[in-house]
Amino acid sequence: MAGYALLIEYDGGPFVGWQRQGQGLSVQQVLEEAAAHLNAGVAPTMIAAGRTDAGVHAEGQVAQLEITADLPPERVREALNFHSRPHPVSVLAAAPAPEGWSARFSATGRAYRYRILNRRARPALDLGRVWHVQRRLDAAAMHEAAQMLLGQHDFSAFRAAACQAKSALRTLDRLDVARLGDEVVVTAAARSFLHHQVRNLVGTLVEVGWGRRPASWPRSVLDGRDRARAGQTAPPEGLVLTGVRYAEPLDWG
Amino acid sequence: MAGYALLIEYDGGPFVGWQRQGQGLSVQQVLEEAAAHLNAGVAPTMIAAGRTDAGVHAEGQVAQLEITADLPPERVREALNFHSRPHPVSVLAAAPAPEGWSARFSATGRAYRYRILNRRARPALDLGRVWHVQRRLDAAAMHEAAQMLLGQHDFSAFRAAACQAKSALRTLDRLDVARLGDEVVVTAAARSFLHHQVRNLVGTLVEVGWGRRPASWPRSVLDGRDRARAGQTAPPEGLVLTGVRYAEPLDWG
Repeated sequence: MAGYALLIEYDGGPFVGWQRQGQGLSVQQVLEEAAAHLNAGVAPTMIAAGRTDAGVHAEGQVAQLEITADLPPERVREALNFHSRPHPVSVLAAAPAPEGWSARFSATGRAYRYRILNRRARPALDLGRVWHVQRRLDAAAMHEAAQMLLGQHDFSAFRAAACQAKSALRTLDRLDVARLGDEVVVTAAARSFLHHQVRNLVGTLVEVGWGRRPASWPRSVLDGRDRARAGQTAPPEGLVLTGVRYAEPLDWG
Repeated sequence: MAGYALLIEYDGGPFVGWQRQGQGLSVQQVLEEAAAHLNAGVAPTMIAAGRTDAGVHAEGQVAQLEITADLPPERVREALNFHSRPHPVSVLAAAPAPEGWSARFSATGRAYRYRILNRRARPALDLGRVWHVQRRLDAAAMHEAAQMLLGQHDFSAFRAAACQAKSALRTLDRLDVARLGDEVVVTAAARSFLHHQVRNLVGTLVEVGWGRRPASWPRSVLDGRDRARAGQTAPPEGLVLTGVRYAEPLDWG
């Protein structure tokens, strides 16, 4: 058996998410079925660093693959890309997996970007890549509110009902909000996130951006630990997993 | 009658181009049929600054509209966006057209961007938005070659056989090539371009980027005025019309 780390890009639009579900096509299934060609016809189980939801994209997902064929990493990348066509999934790089490495449990950082298209006209070129918010957002106020959420907290107020994590304690390392022309871009980084945490944070920050709530409000929602007090869950299409960090960096070649 | 200038974004992927053709859906048709709702049910003829080809995108196309309804420009924008759904066409802004103004003939500058995704793995997130070139490109050599094409020349070597312009004399104001991570981005600006001119320039510059030809070669192709000597026509999906300039700037509100 040979172990590999894979760096993966995908358009989340046509998928039920990273993980296999009862119904619908997952990114995991596309890649596992492609990997069967390198594993004596048997689809191996792949584990990813971030179990992105339906519609959520990835520029830098990392997943783990074990196959019977002992191939140079670039051959693995090429074969997976060949066999995963025509789905919008692309293996950017493959690396030998270090001994004892886990794509999920060895990860020490995950980073996401959330794009809001903040203009009157609906998106044409960025359809499916942004959350379209027509009402003008005050990005500076959103950024100010976001800074009060940094550090280690019980993020119960921002977790999905379906979240399976035992504890809601997380350490938010970065939550930046910046305006870039017609876009408001939120950048989030943490060792790990709860289910829907980034989308719930974004949905809460826009309440501040709209001026409905003061910049201090998201922090009071956090302290209240009550999901019902937070803002809406921002839609999946604006979210992209940009990268995963490991204590021992992988050699992507 | 009331005249308007429209600033338009579209995904060229599903269209036969800006202009109506014998078969297939054009951006022009989508907008003209939407505008019929503001013109007593009759689709008015719309003229655009850039007659983009099938598959070519626009972030800043400018078109001209004359309708019977005398409405505030923002009402025109909202109505066109409502009636052009669900096509990936979006009117970003509308402005009153100045007296005697022509979207096409009053334009004093047109700018395009061409994106090349220069990596081994095929595009997933940018599928349909980039030309995927696997072999490594030397963007600095391409930029050097491009600078020798600036100024007023007979661009016969870079025009399509179907080009209807009477003269091939054009003045190329800007042709920059820069690497941005995995992307090589070409930026072109001129008062006007010949049919396929930008795509033929890009297809010729990549020959230099691959090291097959020296940086002086595109200039010798230009001087030869022979289309058969130039490189391939780069595919449409990497091209986007980024903006149109007028001597008298439009008031987009």
